[in-house]
Amino acid sequence: MSSYTPPLDDWRFVIEHVVDAPASWRELPAFADLDGETAAEVLAQAGRFAADVLAPLNGPGDRQGCRWSPDGGGTVRTPDGYPAAWQAFVDGGWPALACDPDVGGQGLPQLLNAAMFEMLVGANHAWTMYPGLLHGAYEAIKATATPELRERYLAKVVSGEWLATMNLTEPQAGSDLGLIRTRAEPVEPPPEGQPLANGAPVRISGNKIFISGGDQDMSANIVHLVLARLPGAPAGTRGLSLFLVPKWLPDAHGGLGRRNAAHCDGIEHKMGIHGSATSQMRFEQAEGWLLGQPGAGLGAMFLMMNSARLHVAMQGLAHLEAATQKALAYARERVQLRAPARPDDAGPASGADPIAWHPAMRRILLGLQAQTEGARVVAGWIGVLLDASEQHPDADRRQRAGDLVALLTPVAKAFLTDLGHRGADEALGVLGGYGYVHEYGIEQIVRDSRIAMIYEGTNEIQAIDLVMRKWLDTPRRMDALLDELRAEVTAAADRPELAVEAAALQRQVDALAEAGGHLQAARAHGPDAVLAVADDALAAVGWTLLCWAWLRSARCAERHPDAAVSARKRELARFGCTWLMDAQATRWSRLQQWQRPLPWLRC
Amino acid sequence: MSSYTPPLDDWRFVIEHVVDAPASWRELPAFADLDGETAAEVLAQAGRFAADVLAPLNGPGDRQGCRWSPDGGGTVRTPDGYPAAWQAFVDGGWPALACDPDVGGQGLPQLLNAAMFEMLVGANHAWTMYPGLLHGAYEAIKATATPELRERYLAKVVSGEWLATMNLTEPQAGSDLGLIRTRAEPVEPPPEGQPLANGAPVRISGNKIFISGGDQDMSANIVHLVLARLPGAPAGTRGLSLFLVPKWLPDAHGGLGRRNAAHCDGIEHKMGIHGSATSQMRFEQAEGWLLGQPGAGLGAMFLMMNSARLHVAMQGLAHLEAATQKALAYARERVQLRAPARPDDAGPASGADPIAWHPAMRRILLGLQAQTEGARVVAGWIGVLLDASEQHPDADRRQRAGDLVALLTPVAKAFLTDLGHRGADEALGVLGGYGYVHEYGIEQIVRDSRIAMIYEGTNEIQAIDLVMRKWLDTPRRMDALLDELRAEVTAAADRPELAVEAAALQRQVDALAEAGGHLQAARAHGPDAVLAVADDALAAVGWTLLCWAWLRSARCAERHPDAAVSARKRELARFGCTWLMDAQATRWSRLQQWQRPLPWLRC
Repeated sequence: MSSYTPPLDDWRFVIEHVVDAPASWRELPAFADLDGETAAEVLAQAGRFAADVLAPLNGPGDRQGCRWSPDGGGTVRTPDGYPAAWQAFVDGGWPALACDPDVGGQGLPQLLNAAMFEMLVGANHAWTMYPGLLHGAYEAIKATATPELRERYLAKVVSGEWLATMNLTEPQAGSDLGLIRTRAEPVEPPPEGQPLANGAPVRISGNKIFISGGDQDMSANIVHLVLARLPGAPAGTRGLSLFLVPKWLPDAHGGLGRRNAAHCDGIEHKMGIHGSATSQMRFEQAEGWLLGQPGAGLGAMFLMMNSARLHVAMQGLAHLEAATQKALAYARERVQLRAPARPDDAGPASGADPIAWHPAMRRILLGLQAQTEGARVVAGWIGVLLDASEQHPDADRRQRAGDLVALLTPVAKAFLTDLGHRGADEALGVLGGYGYVHEYGIEQIVRDSRIAMIYEGTNEIQAIDLVMRKWLDTPRRMDALLDELRAEVTAAADRPELAVEAAALQRQVDALAEAGGHLQAARAHGPDAVLAVADDALAAVGWTLLCWAWLRSARCAERHPDAAVSARKRELARFGCTWLMDAQATRWSRLQQWQRPLPWLRC
Repeated sequence: MSSYTPPLDDWRFVIEHVVDAPASWRELPAFADLDGETAAEVLAQAGRFAADVLAPLNGPGDRQGCRWSPDGGGTVRTPDGYPAAWQAFVDGGWPALACDPDVGGQGLPQLLNAAMFEMLVGANHAWTMYPGLLHGAYEAIKATATPELRERYLAKVVSGEWLATMNLTEPQAGSDLGLIRTRAEPVEPPPEGQPLANGAPVRISGNKIFISGGDQDMSANIVHLVLARLPGAPAGTRGLSLFLVPKWLPDAHGGLGRRNAAHCDGIEHKMGIHGSATSQMRFEQAEGWLLGQPGAGLGAMFLMMNSARLHVAMQGLAHLEAATQKALAYARERVQLRAPARPDDAGPASGADPIAWHPAMRRILLGLQAQTEGARVVAGWIGVLLDASEQHPDADRRQRAGDLVALLTPVAKAFLTDLGHRGADEALGVLGGYGYVHEYGIEQIVRDSRIAMIYEGTNEIQAIDLVMRKWLDTPRRMDALLDELRAEVTAAADRPELAVEAAALQRQVDALAEAGGHLQAARAHGPDAVLAVADDALAAVGWTLLCWAWLRSARCAERHPDAAVSARKRELARFGCTWLMDAQATRWSRLQQWQRPLPWLRC
């Protein structure tokens, strides 16, 4: 029941046939030597780790959970097998996959890192919470830390010897980080009128909650990245600075010295991801160091956050994939009632048919397949764009790729996690009563997947970010996306067999272009009416991306050597672009027509 | 955090103002003396029991769960406090609320029983599983048992001294009861060529799974109603008969005698309703008695099932209500970020506003309120119809009410449980990270509510029942519903302030009438295409009922003495009939256009 099959074939299809990553790697000096074969081999190894090491720990870890003890400043024991799996991951060099070779990384594309994380989460979401922030922490430290702090911390984080956390949330400060109260006192105040210098030592005091991996027994040390306020800092987010606070203070030789006053006061009892230690942290004059400039904390944190948001988007894809696998496997085996029609290649009729043949199940299963495979294309495309935005030698190309990444990041985070959770919930229904018991593992995916819609910025916050900042404030980003979508319509123009799908995408392109005008007009009357439809706007963009992905997959699969792949991609495109896209009309019409504010609540 | 407020005011509004139950009671001799005041007092007492006795057991029962032991033929200990709460419920006479006075019941309307069960489930779903089948078992025994068996069992079930179970599912037989294998051997074979007589003793052997309350420590005895096959019975559902199998065999004086060979072999570990013992039952030559005629088991079981399905519909409403309460309470208190607009009566601005003022939360909260209050009207209407279908002195009126109940039962079961689970999931999002931890109780509602979409016939099975049997096979039922809907449009015709809502309902009526024709036409090509859209059809009818409920509530609230109630019902109607009904267009168009079969799965 704990089985998980890494979607290696589909990743290879996406990488080589749909987004043609090898072609873009040839343009990026850092990856010029990488080819599809090598990439596939890396993913095959990562997939084996996910299936063989992590998947067997998934159900047991859920049932055992983490155990907290007040000893030693508050310590957490993760589920049996977690620390050993982490050691194996470190030994394999996996944490360093997409980090720079000059700090010990493997220098592979972010795309491959994203694909690897889909498989790790698909096999075991809770375990994968621990390395989930590693790449973001690496980015933040690399970008902000003094050479001395980088020397001391960066290689250990890259190797995975030490794990990292992100300390933002406080009881009163969730979506509103401006309300953060944690304080940082400089050990030596800066000269009058001077800002505190980067790397200056401080003492941190305050309480943080919902800190993933705030304590654990998997890595020798933990590097906390903490948002706090220096004395005299202005109210709101402009007064926030970022600090590095290790659990164990390094000694003079870079080993572990004294225990720092960064205490874990307890862990949350949650709906899911029971193996992930969601910690309550108490910093009591804990020793730390300023990262970057005072007041620049939020910007530095967003270096982590963008990486973290794409990581969470991969969680959504992972939940969809894992849930779809379980639903399909069950539906093929489970025999109940006669189906109203049977496939042409079915054997002789017996008393009852596989439920996969019943229309009520087919519509769910086809929907799950189409969403999973479409979402993987979207994720793969963002991965390619992310690498180009960081590595392309041409500044215009970097900028254009960066514009698309900025636009697509909130969409991917919110839309894919939404699909992941709702898809898992639908998949549970395929298993009926068996879906509701622990044994089949599907109800765990429903529970685990719910948090991805909340953390790293709730999906509602992503929608506001998309509509206000990424779309209406900077229309060139949406223009870039529209160009890409139109290019696909054009590319499919001479394929009569894809006319239905191309027409569907053309309708989305027209509606999307029009919606921008409507939203701008509505915004002129104040943000209230626009914000009321922000979630619809995000979903409308998300489904448009799936429409694009289905058409593109079907087109790119036409020349695929395996005729079954071509046929399957064509059928999923037809089903997705008709059946699943039906509901788009509702969203577009709401974006066009709903310009009154919502009523106030009476209760 | 365990607080639950019984929705007494809204129930009174529904009963007295919207469905005007007192007027229909005056037509039914059994309830001719009942008035709104008395009914409200009954519900107030039931609400107090729910809030004071059951709600405090809800969170602790979830965390403690049931404990199974192999001793004594397999025994279950329910969570602490469950047995005492059951005794208090029995002492209050609540199990007998809607049972006939001549077997010790209180003879109150089914409507009040339904309203009571909404509150019990809203306070504690898991506990309420134990009496959940009581009324259905009472109906089945009353309708089928010999006088001797009725004498022995009925009063004890009515009083709640003994609880009842429904034993249908087997490992290979879920939605497909025709695959049931449990056998019943007559103690004395009937004379050649004669059927086994009603009440004849048998020995039952076989395995049943997912049996709610298969064992428990709340009632002195348990009455299992078991579907099984007599020797020589035909395959499929026509070969099923119903049997009564007590856990303890009554002694000669009606007390408890020997333990029967009805063993509880274990309980399931589930996503939710941890306090409910979902049992694996093993009957090993257990002593039982035939209920009704051989081969009539499924029909007899459906006497329970219809009652059980309405009960499950009330669970959906209960989850919506409880989740909405938690989301609203949190959203009023939780202060994050400045809202883009503030209500007119807001005080002076501070740094951050209640999240209830933010559009992204208002749309969710308004949706939850509108769905909850609309669903309660639909539930109340079915309750009134159910009583009329059983008690009206005029046969034509009984038949018409019965037609509507038959049509609305699968809709209510599937649609309300769907709203309940999805609504709870949305409400969790309002609480953000706090929604994901056990403490606030909302994640428990999400977990508990999922099963209601599965048991007593999955929601997909309800949709098939609705479309094939209740709608297309017997069009007069849908004609009766259309008449009722049109009457509401007519009643609102002279209210210009409700013109938007009336027009929305008129559109639904037209679309519903048209959809019937399309479905009949599609069915002519075989059932496959119709079954593919059965879930859409059910949802379309469900949302149409809400549209009707919102309009009717707003109209009936116009003369309400409390102006705040009038204003609130009018605003929810406007929001529901515009914002929430937007998505109906998608469903109607699918019902009209999707006449191709779904593709087959390739995987």
